[in-house]
Amino acid sequence: MVNDARDNPGSGRFIDGEHRFPCRVYFEDTDLTGVVYHANYLKFMERARSDMLRGAGIDQRKAHETGEGAYAIAAISVRYRKPARLDDDLLVFSRFTDVKSASLLIHQRVMLDAVLVAEADVQAAFVSPEGRPRRQPAAWIDTFRRLTGAA
Amino acid sequence: MVNDARDNPGSGRFIDGEHRFPCRVYFEDTDLTGVVYHANYLKFMERARSDMLRGAGIDQRKAHETGEGAYAIAAISVRYRKPARLDDDLLVFSRFTDVKSASLLIHQRVMLDAVLVAEADVQAAFVSPEGRPRRQPAAWIDTFRRLTGAA
Amino acid sequence: MVNDARDNPGSGRFIDGEHRFPCRVYFEDTDLTGVVYHANYLKFMERARSDMLRGAGIDQRKAHETGEGAYAIAAISVRYRKPARLDDDLLVFSRFTDVKSASLLIHQRVMLDAVLVAEADVQAAFVSPEGRPRRQPAAWIDTFRRLTGAA
Amino acid sequence: MVNDARDNPGSGRFIDGEHRFPCRVYFEDTDLTGVVYHANYLKFMERARSDMLRGAGIDQRKAHETGEGAYAIAAISVRYRKPARLDDDLLVFSRFTDVKSASLLIHQRVMLDAVLVAEADVQAAFVSPEGRPRRQPAAWIDTFRRLTGAA
Repeated sequence: MVNDARDNPGSGRFIDGEHRFPCRVYFEDTDLTGVVYHANYLKFMERARSDMLRGAGIDQRKAHETGEGAYAIAAISVRYRKPARLDDDLLVFSRFTDVKSASLLIHQRVMLDAVLVAEADVQAAFVSPEGRPRRQPAAWIDTFRRLTGAA
Repeated sequence: MVNDARDNPGSGRFIDGEHRFPCRVYFEDTDLTGVVYHANYLKFMERARSDMLRGAGIDQRKAHETGEGAYAIAAISVRYRKPARLDDDLLVFSRFTDVKSASLLIHQRVMLDAVLVAEADVQAAFVSPEGRPRRQPAAWIDTFRRLTGAA
Repeated sequence: MVNDARDNPGSGRFIDGEHRFPCRVYFEDTDLTGVVYHANYLKFMERARSDMLRGAGIDQRKAHETGEGAYAIAAISVRYRKPARLDDDLLVFSRFTDVKSASLLIHQRVMLDAVLVAEADVQAAFVSPEGRPRRQPAAWIDTFRRLTGAA
Repeated sequence: MVNDARDNPGSGRFIDGEHRFPCRVYFEDTDLTGVVYHANYLKFMERARSDMLRGAGIDQRKAHETGEGAYAIAAISVRYRKPARLDDDLLVFSRFTDVKSASLLIHQRVMLDAVLVAEADVQAAFVSPEGRPRRQPAAWIDTFRRLTGAA
């Protein structure tokens, strides 16, 4: 039995410059109050950003392994609107709001159907393996600008 | 823009009584040694078991909310074979190895293409909201036995 | 061999209205870039806030179990300044910046000795078991105001 | 205000060759069933093992940073006996049961006062930065054997 496309994990896609990434809530994500623990939305959003980069043809693992660099979160501001629960199928929408030489601004919304669950503004800085700010690869910036322009 | 099937998170499927569930490795899953942190495989396996139950028509959230009960892990034995890394697309294979009145035995393998990454034997006990062992719903047992028989 | 005080987990304390909570970095907290994964600082901060409440005589578990309510994070804004690494002994400083009827504003700083690692403004809303905003217990508000006044 | 000993995180200690490590349950550790999520006990146990090595004078961070190596979990077998809940003060007891050239066997028990919450047998293999099995540093083995002999 060979693997086929149905054995791929859920991946997002771009529509009009905005990336949408599906994400289901599991037991690990909840806490004793019955809803998703607040820090875990940051994991969902990071998965969505990584998927967005992947969808844009960017290989973060290779960039890390070759010593080119990686993104470090410089700041994140989250507003939690409605709780999500076990088995909820969330969609994380991500959009570049600014593309600078060494950093990105990304706006993200976590939706449960038409309900806004959480939204965030994220500042991601590209850093060298030693953690110093570094210019993003030129081809990446071009890609981000193209995606932003399409928004 | 309405959601369509592509906005659903990756879900598994049964082939010959065995369930296969796709799972990608993200930054959150790794540790400073560069590979997946050992405890996080238990999360992957739990996602796969939950997806397996969901695929079998079982609604764990409803069972929890109505006070019917939930599964608690009674024992798990894991052998780690090969490390997995960022962006790896894993497949978790799950198979019922025994279906008792109040508990399940499940064998799980985490694969990276043809490479066995980790495997586990899991004993899951059905418990009441107060945590006492409880007989699984009869319809669930029928479902599990049918799936086991197909193996 | 009986347990003694040395078998207690690290607890914080108040100095001049500010709470300080020690927290060590473990493998689970890091990611492949070698530093603490950004979402995990939110866990450290939550531990510090819970310890702060505990130190102020507030029993969150009892409040949850009796149906009185629990805190839900309404908003959090984090600035990451310097990375923390495995084995770092961090101190989380927490201070109430506003005490409202149904919510709290808390400023938190994560320090590695004299180095500011991260800081955050957190808005925590008290909610009923159904998730609706609810007035905090009067005795708790008195406690918070007393601590704020001492700042 | 300078830091003092009270600003150190909770650390364990050895008594008769057995290490005991205190650990409190926080919101992040629980799931919607109200008890600690099963995978999180592996984090508690890893913290305890790291603290045990630290208490034995072993610097894992330095070993990682100098390329000497790190421990990878080869196998873990856990039996869950009783659930733990928010705010529970757990003690993790750890004891070397075998010290081999390139690996360790460790038995661990998670206790809530006199109640056994979970217990595990853990096989930890020392590996090079490339993930290959490697002999543990001789001084470490001496330390482990001494601790084992004292058991």
